[in-house]
Amino acid sequence: MTKVIDFQTDPSKYRHWKVEYDGPVANLFMDVDETGGLFDGYELKLNSYDLGVDIELADVVQRMRFEHPEVKVVVMQSGKEKVFCAGANIRMLGGAEHSHKVNFCKFTNETRNTYEAALADSGQNYIAAIKGACAGGGYELALACNHIMLTDDSTSSVALPEVPLLAVLPGTGGLTRVTDKRKVRRDLADVFCSIEEGVKGKRAKEWRLVDEVIPNSKFDETVKERARELAANSEKADVANGIELTPLTRDFTEDAITYSTVEVTMYREGRRATVLIKGPESDAPKDMDAFTSEGAEAWLLRCARELDDAILHLRNNEKELGLIEFQTQGDPEKVIAHEALLLQNKDHWLAGEVLQYWKRLLKRVDMTSRSLVAIVEHGSCFAGPLAELLWSVDRSYMMLEEFDGDNRPTAAITMSDGNFGTYPMGNDLTRLETRFLGTPEQVEKLKSSVGEALQADDAEELGLITYAYDDIDWEDEVRLFMEERASFSPDAMTGMEANLRFAGPETMETRIFGRLTAWQNWIFQRPNAVGKEGALQRYGTGVRGKYDMERV
Amino acid sequence: MTKVIDFQTDPSKYRHWKVEYDGPVANLFMDVDETGGLFDGYELKLNSYDLGVDIELADVVQRMRFEHPEVKVVVMQSGKEKVFCAGANIRMLGGAEHSHKVNFCKFTNETRNTYEAALADSGQNYIAAIKGACAGGGYELALACNHIMLTDDSTSSVALPEVPLLAVLPGTGGLTRVTDKRKVRRDLADVFCSIEEGVKGKRAKEWRLVDEVIPNSKFDETVKERARELAANSEKADVANGIELTPLTRDFTEDAITYSTVEVTMYREGRRATVLIKGPESDAPKDMDAFTSEGAEAWLLRCARELDDAILHLRNNEKELGLIEFQTQGDPEKVIAHEALLLQNKDHWLAGEVLQYWKRLLKRVDMTSRSLVAIVEHGSCFAGPLAELLWSVDRSYMMLEEFDGDNRPTAAITMSDGNFGTYPMGNDLTRLETRFLGTPEQVEKLKSSVGEALQADDAEELGLITYAYDDIDWEDEVRLFMEERASFSPDAMTGMEANLRFAGPETMETRIFGRLTAWQNWIFQRPNAVGKEGALQRYGTGVRGKYDMERV
Repeated sequence: MTKVIDFQTDPSKYRHWKVEYDGPVANLFMDVDETGGLFDGYELKLNSYDLGVDIELADVVQRMRFEHPEVKVVVMQSGKEKVFCAGANIRMLGGAEHSHKVNFCKFTNETRNTYEAALADSGQNYIAAIKGACAGGGYELALACNHIMLTDDSTSSVALPEVPLLAVLPGTGGLTRVTDKRKVRRDLADVFCSIEEGVKGKRAKEWRLVDEVIPNSKFDETVKERARELAANSEKADVANGIELTPLTRDFTEDAITYSTVEVTMYREGRRATVLIKGPESDAPKDMDAFTSEGAEAWLLRCARELDDAILHLRNNEKELGLIEFQTQGDPEKVIAHEALLLQNKDHWLAGEVLQYWKRLLKRVDMTSRSLVAIVEHGSCFAGPLAELLWSVDRSYMMLEEFDGDNRPTAAITMSDGNFGTYPMGNDLTRLETRFLGTPEQVEKLKSSVGEALQADDAEELGLITYAYDDIDWEDEVRLFMEERASFSPDAMTGMEANLRFAGPETMETRIFGRLTAWQNWIFQRPNAVGKEGALQRYGTGVRGKYDMERV
Repeated sequence: MTKVIDFQTDPSKYRHWKVEYDGPVANLFMDVDETGGLFDGYELKLNSYDLGVDIELADVVQRMRFEHPEVKVVVMQSGKEKVFCAGANIRMLGGAEHSHKVNFCKFTNETRNTYEAALADSGQNYIAAIKGACAGGGYELALACNHIMLTDDSTSSVALPEVPLLAVLPGTGGLTRVTDKRKVRRDLADVFCSIEEGVKGKRAKEWRLVDEVIPNSKFDETVKERARELAANSEKADVANGIELTPLTRDFTEDAITYSTVEVTMYREGRRATVLIKGPESDAPKDMDAFTSEGAEAWLLRCARELDDAILHLRNNEKELGLIEFQTQGDPEKVIAHEALLLQNKDHWLAGEVLQYWKRLLKRVDMTSRSLVAIVEHGSCFAGPLAELLWSVDRSYMMLEEFDGDNRPTAAITMSDGNFGTYPMGNDLTRLETRFLGTPEQVEKLKSSVGEALQADDAEELGLITYAYDDIDWEDEVRLFMEERASFSPDAMTGMEANLRFAGPETMETRIFGRLTAWQNWIFQRPNAVGKEGALQRYGTGVRGKYDMERV
């Protein structure tokens, strides 16, 4: 699987999803093209999915927010008879490398989180309307919806058959959503997860696995009615027209990707990449009308889309680059002005969407299992949303005072009001609150420095950066750090960073990425699942997996 | 490593720890006998430890509570010059099977949690007094103390060198306690965990890694002073005499272990074990004086010690028995009466200690990575603390109505006040609160049934059990469940149960066992750590581990 995975798509290219817009209701049909797998060697039968299917879904969800703000309810349903979705494709999983399995689950999890939060974030409510078998990843698609409707017939059921059938865990938050979102009683959850054929009818409702069970004859009608009802009761403001998410401008070369606002440079020998974000060149649009007419060209939206694509590319296509260095370049005041327009117009639908997107994007950075560092050079613009990167990374290095021959403006960090609540992490705290968990009074104190250009000595004193170095030490210290990081075991780094980055409270989201994912990754290496005689390899052969029965 | 590991010891057998009692202060010296390893093939140099050393520590901590209730402050220190503790023995880890590594970390974690909670639970405060190198598991020993004192000299430091040195994570809660207990800023934590030689002096205090840094010349005196101070300010009541924890009565045969109140039977072909707990035969002691004079013979204490030992034995010595069935036999009213005496006298030191011990023991059951089931037969006594087992297990089966030829009293469950707060889980909720997370009103409703003998139909209706079966179905249903469970992949079971058992909020404790442990277990299988060229294998050879640099 060395093909480059592209995370950009648009409706003209969809092979697996179809959307029919009906005023405030969007009917989203999953109708997977069997022959449309991202890689060779498997067919996507029974609406099973691979990463390619999920990339399209992520695109649907994203466009729903920006291009179709009129939508208040999305009804997720199957375009096929007799099956809702059979889950992740097993042959794909059986043939995939460990790292692809892990990255696949991470991306699908991020997509689930995104449409699950669409109601709270943007007033778009996802309903799952289940007819036919809904198993494994299929039920996880439904679990991330906020209302689950199941038809009551002999072939329709919900199931998490991974454990009995495949010797792995449901990989997309299933166990956590069953206990923590649906709040299914734990012994019933245990039974449910042991039954290959799943649970149907009344019992599915009694066990809290679905919200409604509806006679087959009335199902379609009831789903329509429920969608209309939820749309009518929605508090989402009416918006007539969205903006178009036009194709990104990208240029790939051997060791670089150039976007309009982001430049990725790959240093393969040093096992690292720099991600340079260029601040806006023009002034902020004067009002939201001006912002809206810029559409996808508006700097904050364009930059978010480009950075998002760059992160996904590095994660999935450049696995040997263990260190990502964030750099910025530009005028911090302009960054602050561009953000300020949106902060002042939070109630404007598009301002809200762009800020929410930055929230999601920054969470994606937090969840990226590479060592992350911010390099704050002269001429940089770590301000507002870009300043969040300083507290998303594992460490930061900042230039102190003048550097010989460097006439760029002295490095400074500028906080905005946005840094105090607009971009919460998965743990529901701001990055500053997480950073100063031991000294919460420091977060209050920092508020008085909003808008100030804080140079390295002040930034270090305030705890905003890890290290400040002057011209004499800078190069050596940064180089030593990079060399050190490149020498460590990537696995130990992944584990260490997954534990150090998310101090404080856990949420359903952090539990999915922390507890559930870690256990799944463990199982994804065990011979009982992935060995020659393991269940994933033997699936479909008619022979069950052969297990080492030792409990660990 | 097929030697049977015995979790029972007493001070006459200690090889690694020494305690000097000085009124309310106990000085606890770690002085590991290099030649006293539990297995062959390694020497316990530099106060490094293996499971045997930790079994002694767990015994010290337990006896401190029961035999030395006069102790208010325990000062953990090294009995060796120049080294506090070098952490878990690397050669032992390098040579150990995956399952031993995992079980070793689990037990050491449980021990750390126990003395960490001793202050809140029993008013015994653990201080770490660090002179010399304190690295890895050594610093984790200190982190679980509630006050850390470090001497300020050139050779004394605290360190978590696992990542750079061994390509694994600190395995005993280190990362979680650094971020969540000590609340070290995350980028400083990142730096700290990357420095092999650790951090010393003033910086250790500034980074919140220790509470006090004291000049070498004043160290011993300051430690004494601090211990006296903390003892003087302690709210722990003065208790003159403890009770002796006399040796357990045990009899091991090939397929059974017989204690006075617990009987373990191993069915190796079915890969399961039954743990039968026998209720008290005599009436409850009439008051706490009577209870105290029974000492370690008192049923509730004896039963807890025996059950604890049985669980530890099964976990560590019987890894192929994937299913543990809890059964009870006896008079539920007597169980309730024995517990009631303690509940009514919670302020009596010994009543408090026995109840706290049941809390710890039940957490140990929750954390046992075997499938757990309660089999509620006629003649059983699932009441009060024993009823907690019903909600600790993954599922429960209960006999419904009369069984042909069975003249034992009809199966019934009896709740006590103790079930509503005395034995919280690691997530700080009661087992009933966790069970009814989706219907919290049910917990309130259950309170009105306290003291009632609830037969199977009522118990099922109230949600207290999973299944009730009558004489016709019982045998088949229970057998089918056992066969099904024995057919599943043990790894998938471990992952599934670790996720389903701990719904609701996360605490530092559940984070350590969930997030941190899962990542550590993942790393413990990765070639970068445990492969032929991995860091654990190469440790001490002068050659660094050779790593696959792909990030996952």
